[in-house]
Amino acid sequence: MTTQHLSRELASFAANLKAADIPDDVMNRAEDLLVDWFGSTIAGKGSRPVELITQFAQNMGGFDAAHAGPSEILVSRKTSSPFLAAMANAAASHVAEQDDVHNGSVFHPATVVFPPALACAQALGSSGEELLVATVAGYEVGIRVGEFLGRSHYKVFHTTGTAGTLAAAAAVGRLLKLSPEQMLNAFGSAGTQSAGLWEFLRDAADSKQLHTAHAASTGLMSAYIAQAGFTGAQHILEGKQGLAAGMSSDSDPSKLVDRLGSRWALEETSFKYYASCRHTHPAADALLQVMLASKLAPSDIAKVETLVHQGAIDVLGPVTDPATVHQSKFSMGTVLALVAHYQFAGLQEFDKHFHDDEICAFRERVTMTLDPEVDGAYPQRWIGKVKVHLKSGQVLDGRVDEPKGDPGNTLSRAEITDKAMRLAAFSGGANPAEMNKAIDLLWNIRKQAKIGFLLPSN
Amino acid sequence: MTTQHLSRELASFAANLKAADIPDDVMNRAEDLLVDWFGSTIAGKGSRPVELITQFAQNMGGFDAAHAGPSEILVSRKTSSPFLAAMANAAASHVAEQDDVHNGSVFHPATVVFPPALACAQALGSSGEELLVATVAGYEVGIRVGEFLGRSHYKVFHTTGTAGTLAAAAAVGRLLKLSPEQMLNAFGSAGTQSAGLWEFLRDAADSKQLHTAHAASTGLMSAYIAQAGFTGAQHILEGKQGLAAGMSSDSDPSKLVDRLGSRWALEETSFKYYASCRHTHPAADALLQVMLASKLAPSDIAKVETLVHQGAIDVLGPVTDPATVHQSKFSMGTVLALVAHYQFAGLQEFDKHFHDDEICAFRERVTMTLDPEVDGAYPQRWIGKVKVHLKSGQVLDGRVDEPKGDPGNTLSRAEITDKAMRLAAFSGGANPAEMNKAIDLLWNIRKQAKIGFLLPSN
Repeated sequence: MTTQHLSRELASFAANLKAADIPDDVMNRAEDLLVDWFGSTIAGKGSRPVELITQFAQNMGGFDAAHAGPSEILVSRKTSSPFLAAMANAAASHVAEQDDVHNGSVFHPATVVFPPALACAQALGSSGEELLVATVAGYEVGIRVGEFLGRSHYKVFHTTGTAGTLAAAAAVGRLLKLSPEQMLNAFGSAGTQSAGLWEFLRDAADSKQLHTAHAASTGLMSAYIAQAGFTGAQHILEGKQGLAAGMSSDSDPSKLVDRLGSRWALEETSFKYYASCRHTHPAADALLQVMLASKLAPSDIAKVETLVHQGAIDVLGPVTDPATVHQSKFSMGTVLALVAHYQFAGLQEFDKHFHDDEICAFRERVTMTLDPEVDGAYPQRWIGKVKVHLKSGQVLDGRVDEPKGDPGNTLSRAEITDKAMRLAAFSGGANPAEMNKAIDLLWNIRKQAKIGFLLPSN
Repeated sequence: MTTQHLSRELASFAANLKAADIPDDVMNRAEDLLVDWFGSTIAGKGSRPVELITQFAQNMGGFDAAHAGPSEILVSRKTSSPFLAAMANAAASHVAEQDDVHNGSVFHPATVVFPPALACAQALGSSGEELLVATVAGYEVGIRVGEFLGRSHYKVFHTTGTAGTLAAAAAVGRLLKLSPEQMLNAFGSAGTQSAGLWEFLRDAADSKQLHTAHAASTGLMSAYIAQAGFTGAQHILEGKQGLAAGMSSDSDPSKLVDRLGSRWALEETSFKYYASCRHTHPAADALLQVMLASKLAPSDIAKVETLVHQGAIDVLGPVTDPATVHQSKFSMGTVLALVAHYQFAGLQEFDKHFHDDEICAFRERVTMTLDPEVDGAYPQRWIGKVKVHLKSGQVLDGRVDEPKGDPGNTLSRAEITDKAMRLAAFSGGANPAEMNKAIDLLWNIRKQAKIGFLLPSN
């Protein structure tokens, strides 16, 4: 620990952030991310783990038709308290694996920032601009905490769950207009509730939705109780018995305050193009590039060797024989097989084809090899490299420096809208008229004096 | 990991536990612990962090007079859902530092087992016997998880917060009559939400109450969603990306199933005699022994050297100049000063005297030294050893092998009742008539066909 008080600097930044400090590009990108998040949330409708957490949240609040809560649960069209609505919406927005990701921190900000921020904004009657400022605070804090925790942390912990509590606390804290002192206390409470282990991946268990629900709800709680006077550790991130001391062996405290106010990490956030774990995207794009360039059919291919970073091996390695749609999104072989056969690995492709014989057979022909260049560039850059071994004996190299959706290869507003519409159509979570109305409202959120409900209530 | 499935063995034990399997002594001790816990909870009334968490829990449920929840919040006499009531009661029962502790695991079981178990039992209308069986399940699981996580874990993590999620899930899971498979899923969800860092101690922050609230509520949630079909990691404790992999460097998987069904860890649990961190008790008893034997006054003493285990230094070491009553309970010097002056360090002594000039002056004359014998015996045995240096130049040795409250030196039912009455009188959380009635009910809990409310509602 240096004499600098890094947690306090970060907390003060979040507490003091104002719309006037934020470049217009960043505010625009925050809107893009909001619409993208909304689509991902609606995509969660009908998913078993999402419905179970939503049911729990509803059962544990005494809200009913005669007793309406101030915050909206998007997949059920019910209302509840900010705490319980944030829990349900955060569960919903991560399940389709279509929500955004920040490469450097390997952190999914939207699913832990927007649910608590929206729930709080609806309860307070905040303006659209206030929601966006809070969003930026949440992204800047969460991403820096993820970067700070480092790669050793991500080997065992789901950073979206752990750093997510801080991101949620920052966003909600900003809406609650916490003082820097209160924000630091909120960080203390959020960091000491940080949790989320990768162990569930081995069993295709439902925990990923629980992690985001937990981060969003506990982070929101941390901000609310801080406002009321509850104190927390002053150095929860970098202290001797703090988050990094317990859960990281390569933390870098300087990351916590990296160019605060001049570097906007929110703008570095990538949109998901395929409906799978982001670790699969670079190789999928590289394979597609080779297949299109050489006009290959899947049957031409004997084997695909993907050249990857260690994090991909850690997360995807245990998934050798995916038993569920969700687990198959963490199978490099399945993703590449879908891309080889359908040029896309979207929700529909996973749902209909992940266990087809030809997909499983192709999957078995895909391997992962640690590549020094890819690993060295990671996590700042997610380079895609493949060696495609043809049955003819020829070996073709594919390479993509920025996979589709990355900041240098981003989605247009039309593509974001279209993606959200497709996600809603897939899940049936809202009809096209409802989606059009909500998305139109979200594209114009800065004009909203008071955030209302996005969808008609049940 | 061996081929044994340790998490499953532990989960099956908890799911299959029946009253007939449990020796009568253990059931009786569970009643003792229940009454002791009840007193500690009432002692939390009026404590700022407890009131803040309680207020949050109440605000986040839509329960009001016309919309009563099934579960009782003891410090406010309001009702809520099991989830939110467990959160509030768990915050309340740990703040006075008067709740029980299991030495070997350095884990406080009552505060994370009884609040979720009682809240769930009230919601279900469980019998008193069912509540006690669930209690035993919670203690046996939580203590073994704490022992499994080891001393490296406790250096950074508050084991009551981390192992507490599993203890709460086991107790609630038993009440919900989960199958072994469901219980294992509940463990997966509980373990992946395990959290709680010691960093707050350095700042005398409020996090300890948040840790128990968090463990109780997330553990309860884990059991409820498991009943509904939510899955969790099958090896959350011992897996390659599980709890020990992330948060321990000396975990011992054999501890998870140590003599399940024959060793009753609940019986090894100690009652708190002083109102301070248990790490201070052995030395306090040893000092008192020397002072009484030699009829010493505090002014005779030049310095007290306490000979302690490393865990005491880790937890108490950072507290050099306690600023609050709560922090002073983690100050070895303050506790010994109170014992030297008042022969007791109870709630009243801390509240009135922790910052008196003579107490602070005595505090500065107390040191901690790592002692190989004490450290080697810990955590199975908490030996108290002191060297009392008199102003005369004489040095007196004090030694206590089992501090008051330990299983070999336990409290009688009369002492437990008296302690609860004193705690309630101190906080004003219930009047003597209310306490008598509730405690009488609790001593006869096995006759209750259906657990009702313990106190009159507001």
